[in-house]
Amino acid sequence: MIYVSRKEHFNAAHKLYNPQWSKEKNQQVFGPCANENWHGHNYDLIITVSGETDPETGFVVDLKKLSVLIKAKVLEPLDHQNLNVDVSFLQGKMPTTEVLAMEIWNILDLEVPAITKFGKLYSVKLYETPRNFVEYFGPQL
Amino acid sequence: MIYVSRKEHFNAAHKLYNPQWSKEKNQQVFGPCANENWHGHNYDLIITVSGETDPETGFVVDLKKLSVLIKAKVLEPLDHQNLNVDVSFLQGKMPTTEVLAMEIWNILDLEVPAITKFGKLYSVKLYETPRNFVEYFGPQL
Amino acid sequence: MIYVSRKEHFNAAHKLYNPQWSKEKNQQVFGPCANENWHGHNYDLIITVSGETDPETGFVVDLKKLSVLIKAKVLEPLDHQNLNVDVSFLQGKMPTTEVLAMEIWNILDLEVPAITKFGKLYSVKLYETPRNFVEYFGPQL
Amino acid sequence: MIYVSRKEHFNAAHKLYNPQWSKEKNQQVFGPCANENWHGHNYDLIITVSGETDPETGFVVDLKKLSVLIKAKVLEPLDHQNLNVDVSFLQGKMPTTEVLAMEIWNILDLEVPAITKFGKLYSVKLYETPRNFVEYFGPQL
Amino acid sequence: MIYVSRKEHFNAAHKLYNPQWSKEKNQQVFGPCANENWHGHNYDLIITVSGETDPETGFVVDLKKLSVLIKAKVLEPLDHQNLNVDVSFLQGKMPTTEVLAMEIWNILDLEVPAITKFGKLYSVKLYETPRNFVEYFGPQL
Amino acid sequence: MIYVSRKEHFNAAHKLYNPQWSKEKNQQVFGPCANENWHGHNYDLIITVSGETDPETGFVVDLKKLSVLIKAKVLEPLDHQNLNVDVSFLQGKMPTTEVLAMEIWNILDLEVPAITKFGKLYSVKLYETPRNFVEYFGPQL
Repeated sequence: MIYVSRKEHFNAAHKLYNPQWSKEKNQQVFGPCANENWHGHNYDLIITVSGETDPETGFVVDLKKLSVLIKAKVLEPLDHQNLNVDVSFLQGKMPTTEVLAMEIWNILDLEVPAITKFGKLYSVKLYETPRNFVEYFGPQL
Repeated sequence: MIYVSRKEHFNAAHKLYNPQWSKEKNQQVFGPCANENWHGHNYDLIITVSGETDPETGFVVDLKKLSVLIKAKVLEPLDHQNLNVDVSFLQGKMPTTEVLAMEIWNILDLEVPAITKFGKLYSVKLYETPRNFVEYFGPQL
Repeated sequence: MIYVSRKEHFNAAHKLYNPQWSKEKNQQVFGPCANENWHGHNYDLIITVSGETDPETGFVVDLKKLSVLIKAKVLEPLDHQNLNVDVSFLQGKMPTTEVLAMEIWNILDLEVPAITKFGKLYSVKLYETPRNFVEYFGPQL
Repeated sequence: MIYVSRKEHFNAAHKLYNPQWSKEKNQQVFGPCANENWHGHNYDLIITVSGETDPETGFVVDLKKLSVLIKAKVLEPLDHQNLNVDVSFLQGKMPTTEVLAMEIWNILDLEVPAITKFGKLYSVKLYETPRNFVEYFGPQL
Repeated sequence: MIYVSRKEHFNAAHKLYNPQWSKEKNQQVFGPCANENWHGHNYDLIITVSGETDPETGFVVDLKKLSVLIKAKVLEPLDHQNLNVDVSFLQGKMPTTEVLAMEIWNILDLEVPAITKFGKLYSVKLYETPRNFVEYFGPQL
Repeated sequence: MIYVSRKEHFNAAHKLYNPQWSKEKNQQVFGPCANENWHGHNYDLIITVSGETDPETGFVVDLKKLSVLIKAKVLEPLDHQNLNVDVSFLQGKMPTTEVLAMEIWNILDLEVPAITKFGKLYSVKLYETPRNFVEYFGPQL
């Protein structure tokens, strides 16, 4: 068992705003992140796949295929978008880094088996800034 | 003469959209940056002051004072804001990295003399992403 | 369960010197780190909290509150200090990166519950330099 | 139990080419990595040792000794070499990042006990580029 | 006048070997870089264009166009190649970082005018490793 | 003319304290940097040499020789030292980043000619932290 990672990046606008709360409560809880005119980030995304190495290639997964997959399934719907407005799988959800990482997991967990017989999705690490980041390892069954 | 730099950061939303053009021309010229629902970035900002060192302190400028100045005059109006909507000194301007760096110069060039007798503003370096950045040294007289 | 991290930094002086040993043995074991006139580092500190997300905020923990907590309880006693001389919770201890990370854990493990109902301290990662670092996950009960 | 890490770096040439396949199949599977005239990388290597701290030194392992060990046993045979041609322990193997990390584990797992009574090898993390990297924690018994 | 930069990366194999010298002299001058079986690097490349901003776009140059140009004219012939063997514009030259940066300048200086009316090539900065790098500003006329 | 750079690092303790001032004035001017028990930093140092390339080697300067020179003449007296106490060339001077960079220039400007016929010292860039740094290009004659 070995862990193989690919780093990608995208940028997006968002705001943190709970529509069931007053504007005042949103500002109290989320501070400047609640700015109704949006703010944004450059996100760094690290996808890790774990598994055995294919004896014919020495790969758990071809990282070029993993990169193409991340671009098609994750960056395409997120890059240069407004996370609250433009992204179907985030509709009605708070676009925190935590929630976004879990949604990216849900997408990729279904897609990784198509590109490797030897590995499966292990973790999604998402940097909102170089100082604020999360890591998700999937639901614990 | 020596060059002293302080690095700060902020994040913001923006879009690149020339209101004198059609939506189609904006998308053709600016691509995904023209998304009308905005996108955003973590900006890194490096302010450089040049000058002689004060013989009593060994400083061209106290970098703590420079940091406080940048926060008050530049980060306060920009951080967690929408560059097209929320920032008075960018009204009616294209919020490209180039234009933003020149506007930051205009603000700080007036303010730096208040915190140092030995130095003056030398350059504004602004990273929109780790891969795209600009540097401005002021108007050439 | 998801893991949320905040990165902070401080700098400090220290020396590695076991007072029960001769000066010669200290120099033999610790080399230049035993310099009696001290040396120092810029430390990078990453605090990770693990837990479920609050359904109302999408946060495990508000990273702004975590940052304020780290600054008050960890950076305030350590930043710009001499780890051997100035820091009460390090008195009589070797200020290695290992020992410092474990002491930071002991402080924050008590404090994190005050800022989140959904998470608890998971790890303390401390970089003495970009090349030398430790990670501590708490005592194993 | 605490985890202590040392970062080193080396550079090398390699190609990914399965000699049991045709040239066409190699190009189809490995793309530009199959270039028969080689390409190369700057590798970053992070070695982590886990254990208790020595009460006399506050160290799990003296990171200077760990650095010397990595240089002698890992960097000496790999740095400025051709991984396919020059490295005895890679003969007949595919020099992917996965395989290389596992071989580095095999070397260091035997050597770390000689420099510390308190720790043992925990992981080998190897960056082929800042975007492509692997981590290996040893065989799972 | 403002300076706009784009960062790209590629990797390649090379050796430093003067064919007019003996093997011994090559090893004496170039050390491990003279290994006849090659070694390699991940190169980081920063291209800077200087000029006025276009009043309609706020750009000196569209960095997406600059990125496409660098990929087509510089990365395509260099990425995953052997600099001594595979690259026509380096035939008969020593593939040091200095020489490579000057050759990249020669290519891009002719091409940049095709993508911007407002700027021209200002510098080529090339990192062979994070610790060894060069910058070239063109021939001084 | 091309500019060739080498990055090195060291760490040291210091304090900023003008002995002609009262303790109160020192604390007012230098804040926590005036802590009489010292604090410290990991310094990053970038030395740039400018010149023509040697036609036989393609080098302005052999960066291995430059690295050896920096280690012998700059890192040896500074690394793991107290800048106020242990360093002869800083005696009686304020060990700010500005002053330290100028002193490093004075040392290396005399030494670089011994290792290259084709280049001379161009600049000394010194990072006290990743956020605070200076660059010095020598006295302007």
